[in-house]
Amino acid sequence: MSSTRSVRLALLGCGTVGSEVVRLLHEQAADLTARIGAPLELAGIAVRRLGRERGDLPVDPSLFTTDALSLIKRDDVDVVIEVVGGIEPARSWLIESLRAGKSVVTANKALLAEDGGTLHAAAAEGGADLYYEASVAGAIPLLRPLRESLHGDRVTQVTGIVNGTTNFILSSMAATGAGFDEALEEATELGYAEADPTADVEGFDAAAKAAILASLAFHTRVTAADVFREGMTGVTAGDMASAKEMGCTIKLLCIAQRGSGVEGDTVSVRVHPAMIPLSHPLAGVGDAFNAVFVEAEAAGPLMFYGRGAGGRPTASAVLGDIVAAARNKLTGTRAPSESNYASLAVRPIGESMTRYHISLDVAERPGVLATVAGVFAQHEVSIATVRQSGREDDAKLVIVTHSAPDAALAATVEALSRLDIVRSIASVLRVEGGAG
Amino acid sequence: MSSTRSVRLALLGCGTVGSEVVRLLHEQAADLTARIGAPLELAGIAVRRLGRERGDLPVDPSLFTTDALSLIKRDDVDVVIEVVGGIEPARSWLIESLRAGKSVVTANKALLAEDGGTLHAAAAEGGADLYYEASVAGAIPLLRPLRESLHGDRVTQVTGIVNGTTNFILSSMAATGAGFDEALEEATELGYAEADPTADVEGFDAAAKAAILASLAFHTRVTAADVFREGMTGVTAGDMASAKEMGCTIKLLCIAQRGSGVEGDTVSVRVHPAMIPLSHPLAGVGDAFNAVFVEAEAAGPLMFYGRGAGGRPTASAVLGDIVAAARNKLTGTRAPSESNYASLAVRPIGESMTRYHISLDVAERPGVLATVAGVFAQHEVSIATVRQSGREDDAKLVIVTHSAPDAALAATVEALSRLDIVRSIASVLRVEGGAG
Repeated sequence: MSSTRSVRLALLGCGTVGSEVVRLLHEQAADLTARIGAPLELAGIAVRRLGRERGDLPVDPSLFTTDALSLIKRDDVDVVIEVVGGIEPARSWLIESLRAGKSVVTANKALLAEDGGTLHAAAAEGGADLYYEASVAGAIPLLRPLRESLHGDRVTQVTGIVNGTTNFILSSMAATGAGFDEALEEATELGYAEADPTADVEGFDAAAKAAILASLAFHTRVTAADVFREGMTGVTAGDMASAKEMGCTIKLLCIAQRGSGVEGDTVSVRVHPAMIPLSHPLAGVGDAFNAVFVEAEAAGPLMFYGRGAGGRPTASAVLGDIVAAARNKLTGTRAPSESNYASLAVRPIGESMTRYHISLDVAERPGVLATVAGVFAQHEVSIATVRQSGREDDAKLVIVTHSAPDAALAATVEALSRLDIVRSIASVLRVEGGAG
Repeated sequence: MSSTRSVRLALLGCGTVGSEVVRLLHEQAADLTARIGAPLELAGIAVRRLGRERGDLPVDPSLFTTDALSLIKRDDVDVVIEVVGGIEPARSWLIESLRAGKSVVTANKALLAEDGGTLHAAAAEGGADLYYEASVAGAIPLLRPLRESLHGDRVTQVTGIVNGTTNFILSSMAATGAGFDEALEEATELGYAEADPTADVEGFDAAAKAAILASLAFHTRVTAADVFREGMTGVTAGDMASAKEMGCTIKLLCIAQRGSGVEGDTVSVRVHPAMIPLSHPLAGVGDAFNAVFVEAEAAGPLMFYGRGAGGRPTASAVLGDIVAAARNKLTGTRAPSESNYASLAVRPIGESMTRYHISLDVAERPGVLATVAGVFAQHEVSIATVRQSGREDDAKLVIVTHSAPDAALAATVEALSRLDIVRSIASVLRVEGGAG
């Protein structure tokens, strides 16, 4: 390809992110041309329906088409940008594009987490690049550092706040003392939560991102199905108050850890709400911001912080990938391909080491604490702190454990629930990010 | 180059960073081979003197040589790694290497900030890669995101804590109320400050890094000489206490801003101590950690945090660059070359907009405040807050201004110093990171 011609782009999808991609391509045209060495040109924009008002976009209306497949098959298309989301038809489109040697830039976390291997294989087959910086943590340059900068190091753990909606809700609960429902309502009104917030509050969105992060960090293949997932709808105002008393706050975390088992190195990946100390760098990440804390053997702790969602921040990440893909097209080079040589086994959640914060409603009578403590001892779970409050019919025990395997902690909770003196288990939350 | 042979490295320097590079190459050998597709092999290690005890390094002692030039001229060397520091002979060695088509990985901030253009030109001439992630903010993957991830966006400001020694000193002053001398002594004892701390405390180290960051962020060429520099030896315990009263702390910042002047876009780059609000993400960066806050038009605010110094963290960044350079060698590709098309004019410090915190010892008599306020008005500097303390012969005025050009603020201070009623100007500090 001569550097005098332009690099031609097919854009699939023109919603919140897609329209910002169009705007940035227009606004930054001169800079982009200087940085790439050739102009970028939109060859077409595939949308579901023509005729929707897009009059404010700085683009020739004749570029819109409903025929995505014909667009990506055109010989004059160099790079395909997918911001449609979902598994199909995105997957078919991207496989078709990659096999035909067209580089792909996508923000599709669900597809990458479910079937990234197929996309990477198609990229290898077609000799094309597959970039997906925007799929995790929006504008934050995170995947390129993991894919490239840290390749001389060994990452041991990735801990992230990768869902802006739930971080907004939890930050609001921490600041105002509101309960989950009230905070969700506020988030919905302000546009931080969708009408159906399930994917966010139940942790599906974070789990997809966790799979992508774990794959890159540990050079192995992790899919969404490998991720232990627990939503944050059960976090109460009482939990947040209890966290504060402990000098903590509550965040929905994704945690990917490298570990070693009897049969070699393993990886564990989980998404769940957790208490973390206020002194932890992730504790201060408020509003709808995202941040990812990476620990590597030589580098030590690293943190990446920024906007994890929104059309314009996400479009910034998409544009960065477009520049890289376009440069490679012009120079006939390729990005580093998928690195999954490590092939680590996925460790079940039961083997993850964590701590539990358990809040129990108990009958207040002599010997209660002894009985409860006995259950922990039977399961070889060591207690770090106990707080007792209330009296008589309304006593509450809050117990925080030391670090133990999740299976032992879960079995302890199960056994506690069967005790007569335990009226109910008010809440169970994991505690992360501090000394065990 | 066939992928069955190894990629051969010449290491120049084997001090704190160099010896950690040797160790990581050994420890991570299997992973590095898998990631690169070929093994890395040390062809030689140039040191100033042979015979120094290096028995603990996992390397064949015959690799050591005092003849760096012969080493880098060897035909079987693919990548030259420079961790010697300083301008000469490092510059000559690297120019020689690059012109001969050998890729260079360097941690040499002073050289890049003084004469980066010459190195980039040599790289272009020889068709070689020039990587220098380790030159700024140690282990933090920062330059690659600026060089690549943000290339579809427009960076407007970079604000960084890029010197670990001074951050340790200022964090210690903030935590304990100690003065500069006492905190410096502690830093020296703990190994955070060198015997001669001038380069750190006078801001020379930060200024070199600021030049490198500004060049990458704004696609222009900025050298150390373009950077306004003010050290932090004048920061007193009283300043820190005053910062606390304002809900601030004091950090040594590097600030690179894009702006526009009558003759087009400009850039300003400065290093000085400044008060920043405790709510600013940089305020919580303690100990010897580094962090860089980047603002981009589409991405919004981003922050990168981690260890900015130390042998092993720095070696992590060097290794990441080695992997990239080695991969390029094997696939016959090249990294994006220098991007300096913007050629922005450097704006003098006087035109930078900032705020001043001015502490004055004044005679306590009627009309003092009116006289002082008059001086501000004459220079068209607006006052945000005034605090007066003490009485009679020992009164103190602390004035914080609104945002104004640095030249007007400096002229105000100069005029105040000439007033009879001003006994002395106890301190002047800039205030950054908040509303003007």
